[in-house]
Amino acid sequence: MNAVNIAEHLSSLGLQARAASARMAAATAAQKSRALRALATLLRENGDALQAENAKDTARATAAGLAAPMVDRLKLTPKILEVLAVGCEQLAAMPDIIGEVIGMKQQPSGIRVGQMRVPLGVFGMIFESRPNVTIEAASLSIKSGNACILRGGSEAIESNKALARLVQQALVAAELPPEAVQLVQTTDREAVGRLIAMPEYVDVIIPRGGKGLIERISREAKVPVIKHLDGNCHTYVDDPCDVEMAVKITDNAKTQKYSPCNASEGLLVARGVAKAFLPEIGAIFTAKGVEMRCDAEAKAILQQVRGADLKDATEQDWSEEYLAPIISVKVVEGVDEAIAHINRYSSHHTDAIVTRDHMHAQRFLREVDSASVMVNASTRFADGFEYGLGAEIGISTDKFHARGPVGLEGLTSLKWIVLGNGEVRE
Amino acid sequence: MNAVNIAEHLSSLGLQARAASARMAAATAAQKSRALRALATLLRENGDALQAENAKDTARATAAGLAAPMVDRLKLTPKILEVLAVGCEQLAAMPDIIGEVIGMKQQPSGIRVGQMRVPLGVFGMIFESRPNVTIEAASLSIKSGNACILRGGSEAIESNKALARLVQQALVAAELPPEAVQLVQTTDREAVGRLIAMPEYVDVIIPRGGKGLIERISREAKVPVIKHLDGNCHTYVDDPCDVEMAVKITDNAKTQKYSPCNASEGLLVARGVAKAFLPEIGAIFTAKGVEMRCDAEAKAILQQVRGADLKDATEQDWSEEYLAPIISVKVVEGVDEAIAHINRYSSHHTDAIVTRDHMHAQRFLREVDSASVMVNASTRFADGFEYGLGAEIGISTDKFHARGPVGLEGLTSLKWIVLGNGEVRE
Repeated sequence: MNAVNIAEHLSSLGLQARAASARMAAATAAQKSRALRALATLLRENGDALQAENAKDTARATAAGLAAPMVDRLKLTPKILEVLAVGCEQLAAMPDIIGEVIGMKQQPSGIRVGQMRVPLGVFGMIFESRPNVTIEAASLSIKSGNACILRGGSEAIESNKALARLVQQALVAAELPPEAVQLVQTTDREAVGRLIAMPEYVDVIIPRGGKGLIERISREAKVPVIKHLDGNCHTYVDDPCDVEMAVKITDNAKTQKYSPCNASEGLLVARGVAKAFLPEIGAIFTAKGVEMRCDAEAKAILQQVRGADLKDATEQDWSEEYLAPIISVKVVEGVDEAIAHINRYSSHHTDAIVTRDHMHAQRFLREVDSASVMVNASTRFADGFEYGLGAEIGISTDKFHARGPVGLEGLTSLKWIVLGNGEVRE
Repeated sequence: MNAVNIAEHLSSLGLQARAASARMAAATAAQKSRALRALATLLRENGDALQAENAKDTARATAAGLAAPMVDRLKLTPKILEVLAVGCEQLAAMPDIIGEVIGMKQQPSGIRVGQMRVPLGVFGMIFESRPNVTIEAASLSIKSGNACILRGGSEAIESNKALARLVQQALVAAELPPEAVQLVQTTDREAVGRLIAMPEYVDVIIPRGGKGLIERISREAKVPVIKHLDGNCHTYVDDPCDVEMAVKITDNAKTQKYSPCNASEGLLVARGVAKAFLPEIGAIFTAKGVEMRCDAEAKAILQQVRGADLKDATEQDWSEEYLAPIISVKVVEGVDEAIAHINRYSSHHTDAIVTRDHMHAQRFLREVDSASVMVNASTRFADGFEYGLGAEIGISTDKFHARGPVGLEGLTSLKWIVLGNGEVRE
C-alpha cells in the first residue's frame, strides 16, 4: 500500500471500529460470553487450517534467516491453540463488569449520584511476533465491551489474519458486529504512525514490545498510551528479617526466570543482616551462575563465597534492567536509604521488602512509589493472573489511569449517573 | 526572563516539586489538615495586605483598558477571601483518602493482593484571570498529598504571588515542605510550553481556560492532560414523560445560568409529546428572550407561540456550545434517535433524559457515552459539589483516568500492594 492507501485503510478501520464500539457497549453479558465460547470452538475446529497459515509465516521467517528461538515464538502449536481456547472460555465464565454501578448516594439536593462502569470505546493494540496476542487482545476486548484495532508483527501476518477471521466469525455468531475486532491488513510501518494519531476513532493505544518501540509510540501518539517501559525491580532485605525467608524470596525473584519484567534486578541489604544474609544468597547465585555487581561493602562480604562472579557496580548498574543472570547488590543503612534508593533508581514497576518489622513494612508500602509494592513475597508475583484479574492486557508503568497489571477494568472507565425526580438547580 | 532563564526557572521548580512530592506523600492526615487550617487563618489575617497586592493587578488591568467585568473577576474582596478560608477549613475536615486500601483478597498462591490510594505526584495547573484558583488548587493539592506548580494569568500575578506566599507559610507551619506549592514567577508565555513538557518532574497537567488554550496544551503536552473542552449538553424529553417536570427541568437546564458548561445547549423532543411540550417551554423561552434554532418539525409547532424568536437550525447548530440565551430544538422519533443524535453531536459532557419509561431510562443511562448521564434532573447538576465530592479541581471531558467532575480522587492513583509470608512463584 502507498501512504494514501494506508491512511484510507486506517480511517476506514477507525470509522467502523467507532460504530461497532457503540453496539459492543450495548451488548448483553450473554452475547459477549456467547462470542467468546464460539471463538473457543472455532479455535479447536480450525486447528489444521490455522497451522497451515502459520506454516507460511514460519517458513518465511526461517528463509529470512530469523533465529530459531524467534521462529519458535511465531508458532501456533495445537497446545498453544488449546490454551487460547481455554482462555476464551475462562473469560466467558467471568462476571461481566460493564454496567456495574458504584457509590450511588443521595445528595442534599435530592438527586442520587453514582458511577457506572462502561467500556473505554476503541483501543488500538500494537504488538510484535507472537500471534497468540491476537486472540488474547480480541477476547479481552469482547469481554470488556470495547472495539479494537490490532496491529501485529509483520512476521506473523498470515497467522494473525487467519485468527482475526475466526474472531469475526465468532462475533457474527453472537449477533455482534464483526468490526468490533479488526486487524490492520498491511505490514507497512506507516500504518502504526496513522493508528496512533486518530483521536477521532481510537481512545487509547496499548503497545507491547521493546522499549524503543514503546518510547517512539508514546512520543508520537495523539491519544493516551497504556505503556510498559522497563522493569528494574528491587528486593530489599531489611533488618530484622527471617534470613531463610529472605534467601528463598531473593533467589526466586532473581533466578526463577531471568527474562520477565518482574524479575529483580537489584538487591539491597540492610547493614545489620548483610553478614548473615549475603554469603548465603551469594552461594546460591554462584551455583546458578549469576553475576553480582556490588558496591564495596557488599563485595567485601561476598568475597568469602568461593568462585563468586563479583564485579564493581557502576552508577549505571543501579538503573539497569539486565533480563539476564546478573544482579546489582548494595548494602544500605536501613529502610530509609532503601526507600530513597528505590525511588531514585527503580523503574517504578515492582519492589519488595523482606522484613519482620511492622513499621518498616508499613512505611515501605506507603512510601515506595511503584506500581506494585510487596512485603515478604517475590517480585515475580507482579502479574494479572497472580493478582486474580483473570486476564492481563498488559502491565502499566504509568500512574495515570491504570497502574501495574491491567485487566478488564483497565479497559473501562466510570461515568457519572444521576437519578432524579424532577430536581432542578437552585 | 529570556528563554534560557525560563527553562532554568521551570526546571528548578520541577526538581523541587518532585522532591517535595515524596514528603507530601508521606505526610500524615493531621499535618495536611494543620496546613489547611493555617492557610485559612492566614487568609483572614492578611486581608489588607492581599487586597493591597490585588489592587496593583486591578489598577494595571484598568489602565490597560480591560473591560469592567474582566477586572471584576480579578478582585479579591473580603467576601471572596472568606469563602476561600472556609473552603480550606472544609477540606481540612474531610476524610483523608490517601493510604486507603481497597479490595485486599487472598490469592491461590497465598499472597494477599489489594490496592492502595496514593497521590499522583506533581501536577501542573494552568489557569487564567481569577486569583482564587491559586488557593483552590493549592488546598486540593495539599489535601491529596501532591505537589503542584501553578501558572496563573499574567493579569493576576501580584495577587497570585501574595497568595502563594501565604500557602508556603502555611505548609511550613505544619512542618511540610514549602516547595509543595510553587507559583511560576514569570508571566512569559514560554513558561507554559516548558511546564507541559517536563515528564521527569510533572505527572499531569490540568488546564483551565478557553477551548483554544486547552487544545493547544493538549496538542503540545508531553504528559497526560486532564482536560475540559466544550460542554454541548442536551436535554431529551421522552415519550411518555411528565410534561410539567420536563418543562421545569428544561427551563432550569437552559436558563438558570447561560454561561456554565453544564447548561443545556440542545433540546430533543420525542414526536409523541412534542405538541404538548414544545408550546409550553417555547412560551417560557420567549418570555426569557431565548432564541430557538429549530428543525422544521419543531418550528412548525413553535410558530404558535406568539413572539417566539425562531431560526432554522443548520448542521453546525447541533454541535454548538452557545453559552448564551440560544438553544437548538429538534423533534426525534424516540429514544433511539435521541441516543444516536447525542452520541454523534454531544461533547460527551452531560446529557439528560426526562422520562417515565423505565426501559428508556436504563438504555439512556447505559448507551449515552457522556461523562454525566442523568434521568429526570437538570444538566446544571454536573458539578463536583453537587455530586458530593466536597471540592472540584476541574471537569474532565476525557474517558481516560478521571471523567466528569474531578475531586480529590482524580488527583490520586491506585498502586498494587502485596502482603506475603515468604511466598515464591512456582
